[in-house]
Amino acid sequence: MKRLAATLVSFSLIAGGASAAERTITEGANRMPTSADIRAVAPALETYAQQVIRGDLWNRPGLSPRDRSVVTVAALIARDQTVELPHYLALALDNGVKPAEVSEIITHLAFYTGWANAMDAIPAAREVFVNRNIGADQLPPVAGPKLPLDEAAERQRATRVGEQFGQITPRLVNYTTDVLFRDLWLRPDLAPRDRSLVTVSALIATGQVAQVTYHLNRAMDNGLTRDEAGELLGHLAFYAGWPNAFSAAPVVKDVIEKRSTAK
Amino acid sequence: MKRLAATLVSFSLIAGGASAAERTITEGANRMPTSADIRAVAPALETYAQQVIRGDLWNRPGLSPRDRSVVTVAALIARDQTVELPHYLALALDNGVKPAEVSEIITHLAFYTGWANAMDAIPAAREVFVNRNIGADQLPPVAGPKLPLDEAAERQRATRVGEQFGQITPRLVNYTTDVLFRDLWLRPDLAPRDRSLVTVSALIATGQVAQVTYHLNRAMDNGLTRDEAGELLGHLAFYAGWPNAFSAAPVVKDVIEKRSTAK
Amino acid sequence: MKRLAATLVSFSLIAGGASAAERTITEGANRMPTSADIRAVAPALETYAQQVIRGDLWNRPGLSPRDRSVVTVAALIARDQTVELPHYLALALDNGVKPAEVSEIITHLAFYTGWANAMDAIPAAREVFVNRNIGADQLPPVAGPKLPLDEAAERQRATRVGEQFGQITPRLVNYTTDVLFRDLWLRPDLAPRDRSLVTVSALIATGQVAQVTYHLNRAMDNGLTRDEAGELLGHLAFYAGWPNAFSAAPVVKDVIEKRSTAK
Repeated sequence: MKRLAATLVSFSLIAGGASAAERTITEGANRMPTSADIRAVAPALETYAQQVIRGDLWNRPGLSPRDRSVVTVAALIARDQTVELPHYLALALDNGVKPAEVSEIITHLAFYTGWANAMDAIPAAREVFVNRNIGADQLPPVAGPKLPLDEAAERQRATRVGEQFGQITPRLVNYTTDVLFRDLWLRPDLAPRDRSLVTVSALIATGQVAQVTYHLNRAMDNGLTRDEAGELLGHLAFYAGWPNAFSAAPVVKDVIEKRSTAK
Repeated sequence: MKRLAATLVSFSLIAGGASAAERTITEGANRMPTSADIRAVAPALETYAQQVIRGDLWNRPGLSPRDRSVVTVAALIARDQTVELPHYLALALDNGVKPAEVSEIITHLAFYTGWANAMDAIPAAREVFVNRNIGADQLPPVAGPKLPLDEAAERQRATRVGEQFGQITPRLVNYTTDVLFRDLWLRPDLAPRDRSLVTVSALIATGQVAQVTYHLNRAMDNGLTRDEAGELLGHLAFYAGWPNAFSAAPVVKDVIEKRSTAK
Repeated sequence: MKRLAATLVSFSLIAGGASAAERTITEGANRMPTSADIRAVAPALETYAQQVIRGDLWNRPGLSPRDRSVVTVAALIARDQTVELPHYLALALDNGVKPAEVSEIITHLAFYTGWANAMDAIPAAREVFVNRNIGADQLPPVAGPKLPLDEAAERQRATRVGEQFGQITPRLVNYTTDVLFRDLWLRPDLAPRDRSLVTVSALIATGQVAQVTYHLNRAMDNGLTRDEAGELLGHLAFYAGWPNAFSAAPVVKDVIEKRSTAK
């Protein structure tokens, strides 16, 4: 309920409020269009946003506002869309995503969507952090204790990938083990379930369905529910376009059905 | 012939004219490079643009300058490329695309390419509309009479999609029916054939060939000719890159051949 | 060794130097984030960049710093990521890529990634060229002597593509022969092996694996080694994201294995 209230307050910013977050948005070189800007081009578009996205989608059960924020931010970074990012990062903080989690999401997506995508997200995040006085003490340290590793599962993964690609591209295989699965994925300030949610969202948002099977299974192993996975598709339809949602739908269906049968 | 003249006049803007459209282009934060800018980096590139794109492609029969404008604007918005958008939106109006159609194209692509793509197109469209004194009276209303719906065909589509994905992602399935096929697609200010042309262009321009079959059939049901479909690929090769055109070519071929056999 | 030194000098720019290249970077509307900017959001991200990318990846054998620059610039242009482009173009020149090659890479990618991608790369290249006093005398001429054409191989390619798509999209087929394979690919200021390296990098960086087989074979026919192809995947994992590298890995493997068997 508190989260929902925060969401509604945050949305009101778009409709003409004048809080810190709104000021943030107008400062960038490419500022986010206002309601008036949108209406001057496409009045129906603004009404769809108001009624369907803000009035329905974000308030639906099935996926919490906090998770919707994680998914939206991941989609925008994966698609390198920075104009609306300050707004959605501010909304993410309002919805309960911690600054340390924002920091880890950007770091994670450097690897999963390309380094420049993470670099392009830095100015927006910096702006939002500065406006809210979020300093180094709220950010994850460079090094420190890691989450425990499931050695058997990781060895199995590494063996499989090594057999497939070790001869062809040993460097890619080694980086994947050393930097990704034995380091990045074990950083404690983003829960494994959320790290998988970010990864799956980025894959769907960029049309890279081939790897959704592995990462969605991983997400569900770590606690993402079947309903959340379905609702994720409905949410990403708006933020990554209908075709990306429908390209992923058969893969999501297949993962969910195989997991049901296996039980 | 009048259209061709408009096209040539519009192109002359790039080569050094000083009309309203040109001034529009230089106002943005990231202005479109001039001929001189391009020659300072790649003289051959500017010559290809002059001889092949402006001198040949846009003047070819098979696809009208008006349709080429629709396709180009759809490709740029789908690929979130906004720097050249003010120029191509101005050219679209010169080529006979109505302001109401521009408005509907952007609204349509919010759903078919992602909300942020539409948002990122707003400033360019607003700039062009302001420069031409295009006001609210020339824009489609938020609500109003809709085009007639083919209830049987829509029920068939909804049943098929519902059977496939209704269990997994009911929200996506419902939004698709209620917001897209029983609302967006029935808005009267963009003809169904043009709405399909925009959709197919966006799909090809972003490499999402899986859904080209459905939407190209729909486009051809609504009047897109076989020659126009072929010419579309030649046009998109320049605006979305050769690989996207060639990835779509087998799908376009398959659709055209199956329709010929069926007759 | 000289190249490596140049690389290290160039990297020091990011870490706080104040050379011409650094000044270049800060002039753009969307400037590249500094180390301090990155640390203010994600300290770990900056450490990964320092230790893994700058400290290891670029110094690895298997792919020269010059080739890594070609690959990185191609990936950024293909993905339309311009913020870091001035830095990587400056680094490319430091690493031995000639201005004429930069010019040809941009021209080549206009066709292979979409015209707007090339247009969006012009300001960055112009900035770097101006800063280094690179004038028209160092750029490839619009026309001039071409590389020799393997008539038999080209006729075979043209026949194959013509049979597949000549009926459906004659214009695309003709442009491919006349503008691409009998003109663009024969321009002498970018070696065929490098032109293929640029093409393959762009395809992998945008997830368009369907055409990697043809172009990687062509690259290897023109001298790209098996080790370089494998190292390319490790490099692109960072600049285009892990999923794109892993989507391409089976295709690269298949090409390399089939070539081994054929010998």
